[in-house]
Amino acid sequence: MIKAGIIGSTGYAGQELVRLLMQHKDVEVVWFGSRSYIDKKYASVFQNMFEIVDASCMDDNMDELAAAVDVIFTATPQGLCASLVSEDILNKVKIIDLSADFRIKDVSVYEKWYGIQHASPQFIGEAVYGLCEINREDVKKARLVANPGCYTTCSILTLYPMVKEGIIDTDTIIIDAKSGTSGAGRGAKVDNLFCEVNENMKAYGVATHRHTPEIEEQLGYAAGKEILLNFTPHLVPMNRGILVTAYAKLAKKVTAEELRDIYDHYYKKEKFVRVLDAGSCPQTRWVEGSNYTDINFVLDERTGRLIMMGALDNLVKGAAGQAVQNMNLMFGLDEAEGLDLVPMFP
Amino acid sequence: MIKAGIIGSTGYAGQELVRLLMQHKDVEVVWFGSRSYIDKKYASVFQNMFEIVDASCMDDNMDELAAAVDVIFTATPQGLCASLVSEDILNKVKIIDLSADFRIKDVSVYEKWYGIQHASPQFIGEAVYGLCEINREDVKKARLVANPGCYTTCSILTLYPMVKEGIIDTDTIIIDAKSGTSGAGRGAKVDNLFCEVNENMKAYGVATHRHTPEIEEQLGYAAGKEILLNFTPHLVPMNRGILVTAYAKLAKKVTAEELRDIYDHYYKKEKFVRVLDAGSCPQTRWVEGSNYTDINFVLDERTGRLIMMGALDNLVKGAAGQAVQNMNLMFGLDEAEGLDLVPMFP
Amino acid sequence: MIKAGIIGSTGYAGQELVRLLMQHKDVEVVWFGSRSYIDKKYASVFQNMFEIVDASCMDDNMDELAAAVDVIFTATPQGLCASLVSEDILNKVKIIDLSADFRIKDVSVYEKWYGIQHASPQFIGEAVYGLCEINREDVKKARLVANPGCYTTCSILTLYPMVKEGIIDTDTIIIDAKSGTSGAGRGAKVDNLFCEVNENMKAYGVATHRHTPEIEEQLGYAAGKEILLNFTPHLVPMNRGILVTAYAKLAKKVTAEELRDIYDHYYKKEKFVRVLDAGSCPQTRWVEGSNYTDINFVLDERTGRLIMMGALDNLVKGAAGQAVQNMNLMFGLDEAEGLDLVPMFP
Amino acid sequence: MIKAGIIGSTGYAGQELVRLLMQHKDVEVVWFGSRSYIDKKYASVFQNMFEIVDASCMDDNMDELAAAVDVIFTATPQGLCASLVSEDILNKVKIIDLSADFRIKDVSVYEKWYGIQHASPQFIGEAVYGLCEINREDVKKARLVANPGCYTTCSILTLYPMVKEGIIDTDTIIIDAKSGTSGAGRGAKVDNLFCEVNENMKAYGVATHRHTPEIEEQLGYAAGKEILLNFTPHLVPMNRGILVTAYAKLAKKVTAEELRDIYDHYYKKEKFVRVLDAGSCPQTRWVEGSNYTDINFVLDERTGRLIMMGALDNLVKGAAGQAVQNMNLMFGLDEAEGLDLVPMFP
Repeated sequence: MIKAGIIGSTGYAGQELVRLLMQHKDVEVVWFGSRSYIDKKYASVFQNMFEIVDASCMDDNMDELAAAVDVIFTATPQGLCASLVSEDILNKVKIIDLSADFRIKDVSVYEKWYGIQHASPQFIGEAVYGLCEINREDVKKARLVANPGCYTTCSILTLYPMVKEGIIDTDTIIIDAKSGTSGAGRGAKVDNLFCEVNENMKAYGVATHRHTPEIEEQLGYAAGKEILLNFTPHLVPMNRGILVTAYAKLAKKVTAEELRDIYDHYYKKEKFVRVLDAGSCPQTRWVEGSNYTDINFVLDERTGRLIMMGALDNLVKGAAGQAVQNMNLMFGLDEAEGLDLVPMFP
Repeated sequence: MIKAGIIGSTGYAGQELVRLLMQHKDVEVVWFGSRSYIDKKYASVFQNMFEIVDASCMDDNMDELAAAVDVIFTATPQGLCASLVSEDILNKVKIIDLSADFRIKDVSVYEKWYGIQHASPQFIGEAVYGLCEINREDVKKARLVANPGCYTTCSILTLYPMVKEGIIDTDTIIIDAKSGTSGAGRGAKVDNLFCEVNENMKAYGVATHRHTPEIEEQLGYAAGKEILLNFTPHLVPMNRGILVTAYAKLAKKVTAEELRDIYDHYYKKEKFVRVLDAGSCPQTRWVEGSNYTDINFVLDERTGRLIMMGALDNLVKGAAGQAVQNMNLMFGLDEAEGLDLVPMFP
Repeated sequence: MIKAGIIGSTGYAGQELVRLLMQHKDVEVVWFGSRSYIDKKYASVFQNMFEIVDASCMDDNMDELAAAVDVIFTATPQGLCASLVSEDILNKVKIIDLSADFRIKDVSVYEKWYGIQHASPQFIGEAVYGLCEINREDVKKARLVANPGCYTTCSILTLYPMVKEGIIDTDTIIIDAKSGTSGAGRGAKVDNLFCEVNENMKAYGVATHRHTPEIEEQLGYAAGKEILLNFTPHLVPMNRGILVTAYAKLAKKVTAEELRDIYDHYYKKEKFVRVLDAGSCPQTRWVEGSNYTDINFVLDERTGRLIMMGALDNLVKGAAGQAVQNMNLMFGLDEAEGLDLVPMFP
Repeated sequence: MIKAGIIGSTGYAGQELVRLLMQHKDVEVVWFGSRSYIDKKYASVFQNMFEIVDASCMDDNMDELAAAVDVIFTATPQGLCASLVSEDILNKVKIIDLSADFRIKDVSVYEKWYGIQHASPQFIGEAVYGLCEINREDVKKARLVANPGCYTTCSILTLYPMVKEGIIDTDTIIIDAKSGTSGAGRGAKVDNLFCEVNENMKAYGVATHRHTPEIEEQLGYAAGKEILLNFTPHLVPMNRGILVTAYAKLAKKVTAEELRDIYDHYYKKEKFVRVLDAGSCPQTRWVEGSNYTDINFVLDERTGRLIMMGALDNLVKGAAGQAVQNMNLMFGLDEAEGLDLVPMFP
């Protein structure tokens, strides 16, 4: 039985981790960290866990935690994980960081986009970017995994095969992304009140959103060169789900069939990436509650552009599900263990 | 491996059955019945099932079906199951009927409230009312189970201990129920369009809703006498969930502690009924996607009334989950097999 | 031109007042009070007002305000209006208080249910309960109007004729009310976040909600005797709207036609109360954005109970619209001036 | 008093026209056309109109209608208006067509994208494209106005100044649009049921949506050359609102201030177009229920692209409001008559 600790277990991603791990046959959660609710019954914060989780919330004592568990998930604001990790800790326990602290290899890029100083840049090189479909082998050997962002996972998986195979002109990439409101976190802010979000649609962080350099870096590896692109997130009046609509000029003449072959080549064997049948657009409802990313594309011969679309559940494949997938790999379990979740509809 | 067939697999309840059975280790669904989508890929009707269900929809051939499966679920409009069942069929296969056909023992009451003639009244006596928490032993021996309605399950579980113990005056019962829109089915009706339901709240079927006699009959058994009550359903702009707020005059002087003891006496050992801590009101979000019914009460000494509240997911404990629970009992499996679903939030 | 000042103009009710008064031909808003946003452009807080309201938010200086305006609306938390009002102020300016401070005649009842000491009980007697349809003549002469609560307005208007005419047994009244989330205010609380409210239904304040004594007092005047009743509010995932479903035993034998005649007798001439055709249930969508209250009833001969239903927009007839209606009466204008708002659908 | 007739008065756009015209002091609606509800009380179809509209629905008798009214609004499916109009009709009455029949000047383009034959191409040349901010003078003299589509109005107003002034490279335009569900109409389709739309986000009509050629044609006039662009509509779980996020490469070096000056030059005097303050993104909630289009932009120097954003209410400025604005111009009224609607929030 793998013993797991969660720092930040009372955010939406942390709570989703609890939901998934409660249904994982090889894992026991022994530490429900939450600075805001220390000593409060976890099930009184999240009443869905009533009679399921009996534990109370605990403080973030990293040393004690490292001694008690096999794996730590940090579902916390930027900067916290970087401030807690150390060689000593990493020798004792595996860490899966759901924050952005170890996602970006160039520390100056991290510090510029996030506006904070990195507290442990010495571990950035070692950290593995935990997008399992792309870095599977490295994840298996990692002590420290940087779990990708929700927008990022959806964007990269949607574009990766086309970038990797040189199908699209990487100077023309535009990613228009739409997210459910759980992505905004559980903080008490006026902007996230029901009446402010409901019956509304808006863009935010236009040209400045922090997931931009993460997407650019990862797709840059695929392209073998630097990429600059536009990424625009939008807030949608729904709880869960990310939809990415991406646009790029074709770099060469291809048919829809050839494009489909490429997508299939990359994803046919991937359990958690489903390339839909021609003509079906990804929709967030069809992946809700599951670890799937649904992908498809439309070739617009009229304009010479490719429209690529992807959908996932931001709390599962975009956060907690991917973290469990990484954990499975790191501990030599079946990658899909605990993630055989049929999407829930409606 | 239990072979299951579903008649009406493309309604919301039918599809939820598919979701649950896909995650049930002892069951294989071999027949996806749907008159409206014959020969269409099931996963093209419900794209969440893409790469999960490979089968196509089939017609409702009861004889062929009875030969091919061990259990048939009928998630169909009223009247259909009654028209299909026969002694011959029941000798071959167990039937769990999610419609109302076999729920009401008095056929004249059924025919009056439903406005149709019952096609096989000879099986009404044999059919077991499949509210597992109350009729567990009978369910285990049944060939034909009448799976309770969604409003009904929530109402009965909420009120049962108080009625059974004579705590409340059964002449004063008022049940004000609120339901998510999946309860209205997947038929294409203007009234159920997004723009008609969203940003709206309404009562419907006031004093005439068909679940009324079903609740009255079952609570009447508990009371040992006939009960007439008011039941008012309301439509809520959400997908899933039923909330029941029930009112009654106290029949005797009791304390809140005594009431809690009674609820605990009935439900402490029941996995799927959670009596919440004092002060916590049931909320539909805390049971979504799961088979739980959350229950609590407030004793209003000022007015001498008891306010009883219950919440469940109409598609799970209110339909498909309860059907699986019944199936587990009928086949001698662990009652909770395939139903260890942690409620999904948000 | 009537000069108006609003204290608390950046809450939902305050902002709705601004919306209505901007469209009122006889009123000019000259003071946008808001302690939280002093000196901030009003239109930067509520961007719908961009190029419509040019003013900035101001502090709550009551003396200065009284000198500058003809009428003050206080859309503030309980206790504030009571602490600001004085004989001197009331000699200069009319006050319409949207808080509960002057709604309850018995100060001990107010202090018990609200848990605060009343700062100016000497004005409670003078204050007129501003439910125009019932106290129209008194409102016309008032200096200080206590604008009724949202739940209260809907409950009283729905029940009033039946109570007044002795049709129902006032010992058996149960009011089950459902409200959109704007009724919870614009404070940044976790409980009101989108992801907490969306896809959820819950009761709250069961047997303890503060609108209870207000409803009991007003219906008690109609009955000519004290009334104790149950009032249960519920939170609905929608922005606006209150739906009341009320139950009571009939006190005498009546027909549906007689009941309709009584409702018509009370409301036929009332512009803002619409008694619907037989068979139509009130729905919040049909009154959204307007000052209407829609009412209807079902006589359940089976149980001897009357089910009375009412719907209104909590921010209009339940708050700002009623305040404008009161203002119109107090200043001798046409009662409907600025309130000819056709409900907006969808 | 202008007498108005509406063909298709029971769709969402038709009903919104009724709402607006009921509040217009110079117009009387005398004909509520609706083939589906002939002889049914209009207020029984749309209960918000109870005690406001007393009329019943009528058939589409164009001759009779033309004799009875001064202006006809056709809020009908494609093809109907084209089949009803004639020289004789146009000599008697002004027509404002909310369908696409007369929006596209090249009949072959219309027939290709809409897949139907045009029944009266002889009037296409005469029809004025009723985007008031651009074709104001022509609208004033028109007999037949082609009221623009909802996506189209938002897209064109957002991009027009930048295209007209040659700021952006018209070969690089991408329009990613998001719409509330009322844009899908009131037809009873499974895809538009509450449970199918709620908690979901999807693209549809990718590379094939019919508003594409309309946008291309109008922006082509501004550019003085043919434009091909990508337009992708998305369905959002909300009732009203369109948000456009548009992208293009800059064709020249400009500063944000220069861009703002250009937008101001075009729109400063336009009542219904609001160019927001720098840093504010358009949001659909801030225009709901009103005739405003909110516009803003972000200059991304990193990628050399301009991101342009626009928001409007699809039923008002995107349909009925614009139709009333056109009517006002055609009849020599104040352009804003009946349209002084403060956006309703929340």
